[in-house]
Amino acid sequence: MINIAIDAMGGDFGEKPIVEGVIQALSIKPFNAILVGQSEILKPLIPQHLEKYIRYEEANEIFSMEESATEVLKRKETTIYKAIELVKEGKAKAVVSAGHSGATMSLATLKLGRLKNISRPAIATLMPNIKTNTLILDVGANTDCKVENLFQFAIMGEIYAKEIMNIQKPKIALLSNGEEESKGNELTKEAHQIMKKIPNFIGNAEGRDIFNGSIDVLVCDGFNGNIILKSCEGVATAIFQILKSEIKKSLISKLGALLLKNSFYKLKKRIDWQEYGGAPLLGINDCVIISHGKSDSRAIKNAIFQAIKFSESNINQVIENELSKYS
Amino acid sequence: MINIAIDAMGGDFGEKPIVEGVIQALSIKPFNAILVGQSEILKPLIPQHLEKYIRYEEANEIFSMEESATEVLKRKETTIYKAIELVKEGKAKAVVSAGHSGATMSLATLKLGRLKNISRPAIATLMPNIKTNTLILDVGANTDCKVENLFQFAIMGEIYAKEIMNIQKPKIALLSNGEEESKGNELTKEAHQIMKKIPNFIGNAEGRDIFNGSIDVLVCDGFNGNIILKSCEGVATAIFQILKSEIKKSLISKLGALLLKNSFYKLKKRIDWQEYGGAPLLGINDCVIISHGKSDSRAIKNAIFQAIKFSESNINQVIENELSKYS
Repeated sequence: MINIAIDAMGGDFGEKPIVEGVIQALSIKPFNAILVGQSEILKPLIPQHLEKYIRYEEANEIFSMEESATEVLKRKETTIYKAIELVKEGKAKAVVSAGHSGATMSLATLKLGRLKNISRPAIATLMPNIKTNTLILDVGANTDCKVENLFQFAIMGEIYAKEIMNIQKPKIALLSNGEEESKGNELTKEAHQIMKKIPNFIGNAEGRDIFNGSIDVLVCDGFNGNIILKSCEGVATAIFQILKSEIKKSLISKLGALLLKNSFYKLKKRIDWQEYGGAPLLGINDCVIISHGKSDSRAIKNAIFQAIKFSESNINQVIENELSKYS
Repeated sequence: MINIAIDAMGGDFGEKPIVEGVIQALSIKPFNAILVGQSEILKPLIPQHLEKYIRYEEANEIFSMEESATEVLKRKETTIYKAIELVKEGKAKAVVSAGHSGATMSLATLKLGRLKNISRPAIATLMPNIKTNTLILDVGANTDCKVENLFQFAIMGEIYAKEIMNIQKPKIALLSNGEEESKGNELTKEAHQIMKKIPNFIGNAEGRDIFNGSIDVLVCDGFNGNIILKSCEGVATAIFQILKSEIKKSLISKLGALLLKNSFYKLKKRIDWQEYGGAPLLGINDCVIISHGKSDSRAIKNAIFQAIKFSESNINQVIENELSKYS
């Protein structure tokens, strides 16, 4: 059975939702969970019938969200440091962490190392579209990119779509301010030309294409990716807030909302990031899944399944093989 | 009375919504509309009682959306060329056009000229937030910006917020991937330092801050601005599409939707860009309002009111004065 190292105490809400997520995942599929943290706090949370799937790795410190990512290399007693070490030492195949994402990325890159021909790893995330999901990368690891970075992100995204999302011929697009080849900033115009070498590259895509189901993988720098993620979250929140305040204004609309409860629930579930688990860090050896600091147990459960699927696949080898074709 | 030049035939839907917008505006506030286009087509659309407010400027050609903006300087018989000429010659105070925005911007910049100390004009647009609106600039004029451009956009946005939106102390923010000063790409980190000189600058803002009512003016390069605009439009469309398909699945939810009709209508109205009119081109002499190619009559009516308010203000002089303080 696969060993997954779980940073059990790094998230915003402490150990409870993390451990609860592990329990939920175990109730669906068996695996060996190595919980990294203080075992005296963690042990009482595990039901007896699951104890056989759980091991503990002692770590007494938490790397806080306020600290600078660069400090993490010195913090050898933190949960995230010890979790990454488990993978480095071959004791676990993957890490799931809802802790400081910058620190996780730094540790993963420096301790586990980058794949061959990858200059910089990327954080990839799924966003819902009207049909299925769109994979976007990078969403935060690299604020200033070069053409070669965007090219490598495209290859990593393509292989992730094929190997993990089971899309045979994923549509890869480059984020730009217009569909035409002539549109873009200096970086994307140059990247567009190089990306034409990729058979599944379909050209530029605009912001709206993330949601209309016309693309599978969107490539952008981490600055733009992060901004898209947060803007879109902001729009969705604002829409629900405005609608809620309108609904409150009359009894008839309150009744209407009651009748629509099920539809609203399904919509919310459809666009809820917690359903998607975490964001894989692509381009490093082994598997690291970065979960949102505010992850609930569902998000952790889904992140664990992502980690298992990733680790059981051959994705890193396929990325290296694919990139070697172009070098 | 003020003279406004209207590109009467440049939009995606021809002359009808444009002329209808002029008629709607005239029914609320008198002004002199100079309709630029083929008078034989336009005249029959004007009700007799409004004829006294209308003049015609003959222009037999339309600059199509497919053409390259740089070509427009040679196309002296197009509606947009003639409309800008009317302002240049002092025959009109402002232009409203739903035609090719790149062409309008090129013509305005080259024919009317930039304000003193402005290196590049910017397109500014309003987006709804849960309280009022957020002004975002640039949303498309400049895909690659320098620090000085972002600084000038901030000043122009600040003055627009004060003079046109009547916000005494507008909160100016810089779009970034995190609120902390240390967050950003190379461009924004440097721009942040320079923008600190502006008393109303409140620091970095993230994508979600556009919608939560915490800022009044958001500064970004035109590549990011355009991507935000289109992504957010995409999210809103997707949310309504998913909800609609959920509602269709049961009779109870269909009834619920019926009872919520009024709330949905108000929400849609609140987030509908047609309510906001057009996007002012800031940083050029005189006033040019760029409307969406798909503008309906409401959008044109609102764009005309924007043009009147802009032209009756002293905004361009105030921008020049403000910028001279920093040079």
